[in-house]
Amino acid sequence: MSQPENRQFRLIRRPVGHVKREDFEFRTEPARAPEHGEIMVGVEYLSLDPAMRGWMNEGKSYIAPVKLGDVMRAGGVGTIIESKADGFVPGDVVTGALGIQTVATLAAKDCIKVDASLAPKPLFISALGMPGMTAYFGLLVVGEPKSGETVVVSGAAGAVGALVGQIAKIQGCHVVGIAGGAEKCRYIVDELGFDGAIDYKSDSVPAKLRELCPKGIDVYFDNVGGQILDDCLAQINLRARIVICGAISQYNNTTPVKGPSNYLALLVNRARMQGMIVFDYADRYPEGARAMAGWMKDGRLKSREDIVDGIETFPETLQKLFTGENFGKLILKV
Amino acid sequence: MSQPENRQFRLIRRPVGHVKREDFEFRTEPARAPEHGEIMVGVEYLSLDPAMRGWMNEGKSYIAPVKLGDVMRAGGVGTIIESKADGFVPGDVVTGALGIQTVATLAAKDCIKVDASLAPKPLFISALGMPGMTAYFGLLVVGEPKSGETVVVSGAAGAVGALVGQIAKIQGCHVVGIAGGAEKCRYIVDELGFDGAIDYKSDSVPAKLRELCPKGIDVYFDNVGGQILDDCLAQINLRARIVICGAISQYNNTTPVKGPSNYLALLVNRARMQGMIVFDYADRYPEGARAMAGWMKDGRLKSREDIVDGIETFPETLQKLFTGENFGKLILKV
Repeated sequence: MSQPENRQFRLIRRPVGHVKREDFEFRTEPARAPEHGEIMVGVEYLSLDPAMRGWMNEGKSYIAPVKLGDVMRAGGVGTIIESKADGFVPGDVVTGALGIQTVATLAAKDCIKVDASLAPKPLFISALGMPGMTAYFGLLVVGEPKSGETVVVSGAAGAVGALVGQIAKIQGCHVVGIAGGAEKCRYIVDELGFDGAIDYKSDSVPAKLRELCPKGIDVYFDNVGGQILDDCLAQINLRARIVICGAISQYNNTTPVKGPSNYLALLVNRARMQGMIVFDYADRYPEGARAMAGWMKDGRLKSREDIVDGIETFPETLQKLFTGENFGKLILKV
Repeated sequence: MSQPENRQFRLIRRPVGHVKREDFEFRTEPARAPEHGEIMVGVEYLSLDPAMRGWMNEGKSYIAPVKLGDVMRAGGVGTIIESKADGFVPGDVVTGALGIQTVATLAAKDCIKVDASLAPKPLFISALGMPGMTAYFGLLVVGEPKSGETVVVSGAAGAVGALVGQIAKIQGCHVVGIAGGAEKCRYIVDELGFDGAIDYKSDSVPAKLRELCPKGIDVYFDNVGGQILDDCLAQINLRARIVICGAISQYNNTTPVKGPSNYLALLVNRARMQGMIVFDYADRYPEGARAMAGWMKDGRLKSREDIVDGIETFPETLQKLFTGENFGKLILKV
């Protein structure tokens, strides 16, 4: 069988600061035929995530860095073209770390088969995929919100933040989101049902937090780090929980990360700050996906995808995450 | 009955940076006679603690600031001179917030009667008092060390740190202390049985941590903040626990507190950083004191007091905490 063409982005240089097109090679080669246990997948949608920036750096992290010369790592959803693995047949829809390429050949055991009749394919890399599981387990397991408590989330119009806020509302919390721009703020309040929104680009975050969180902050779900983390720390309650999910404001730094000057609020308030990585909850994904799908079916949870067409736009499209341009889960349509 | 003379330090100015003698008025007045429910105590030993610096500042903290004009707050131990409270009689030994003064008149319910036949009086404001309870509950409840894990403690020759390290050894941990100066380092290893010591004044803390903690850090008990907190964060293990007990390096800052730049190690390692205040464990002090007294009796736990004579030396003696001059629990003998 003649192999299909595979267009792909390989990382050829460790980016300094913001990612540039020259950090990658965009090339075309024949797709590799699957060996025993492997499948060949026609990639349809790729997930673009802030964490990808970290994977491009050298050095130990929670996951190995992408090696120079390798296809850039990315989660995705696609349809099997050819299979040498039991239980996987052409036409099956799978999700997994497919990479920024049009055709992925990889071990079937590293993929998850999904029922594409349940939801549009992009959802399997959005609310029903990694961002959904991050929001679900990060908020519920690490944040431990209780009904009546105040939950603040940053990056609130982003893939994870929008879900965190809605799940917190479902738990009976008072929910305030921090996002950039009037349109995103209107969206999280009017469309998603947040109790309040703070536009960090035009509002004074400390003053607005005082106004919108009159009883203080019990749970802060942090996607951004930097000054906003400090502003939230300054207003936490006794025994508050801070979930460190990301620090998008710091990922492209060429200077040291800004540490939270107000971390002694943890001492004064006997509060905790705890990091979370979604992969730790892999054995509980089915539980999370079931809950999320149920809430979506009931109309209590909405998911918004920002789908950009064309794998060739990858380096520039990824930048939308860091400039605050994306609105909802950023997805590349292949 | 003619009232005894009471010599006392009253806070008359909020210190800027380091505490100065001029921030206080040292005066003599007649002791106040006890009213119903009160006792008059002849103060014998006063506890000097880093937290006192925070109590001198204006603004919300875990405890109200000392008001300008009030006697400086301090824990102490002394003997009842006169009592108008049931169950308290002259000659009883009590601990409580006696304040920097020679005679304290206060509500008996705010004091704890201790059995002075069990231990020398200074111990009731050291290993069997607040520093002991801080070490015991901070390490065991917040730090949750497990046998075989690596525990690092800063301020390791100080009142709390020295006890933390010894309790961690009793739990079967590999224990490394960070202290200032060769004498303190020798003390914690040779006298207290720590597995290793780092002299932050002459060693490279990162290099020494790598050498002495080859398996990484599972629990870091932080008394100092600043650069040492960052150095430890850089070497934590998966699911590490960081106990924020104090930040003595930052208490006299006139510039903003240095936040931990490496806080994203919490994310990468799914670790947590949590503050602790000893007062939260007040209902469990008897349990803690019993355990500590038992270990001392068995010779497994040693306590060292640095006793300075003369209430009139208070402002200068307090400074020993911040210059690193004290060695063991700093106590003022009245």
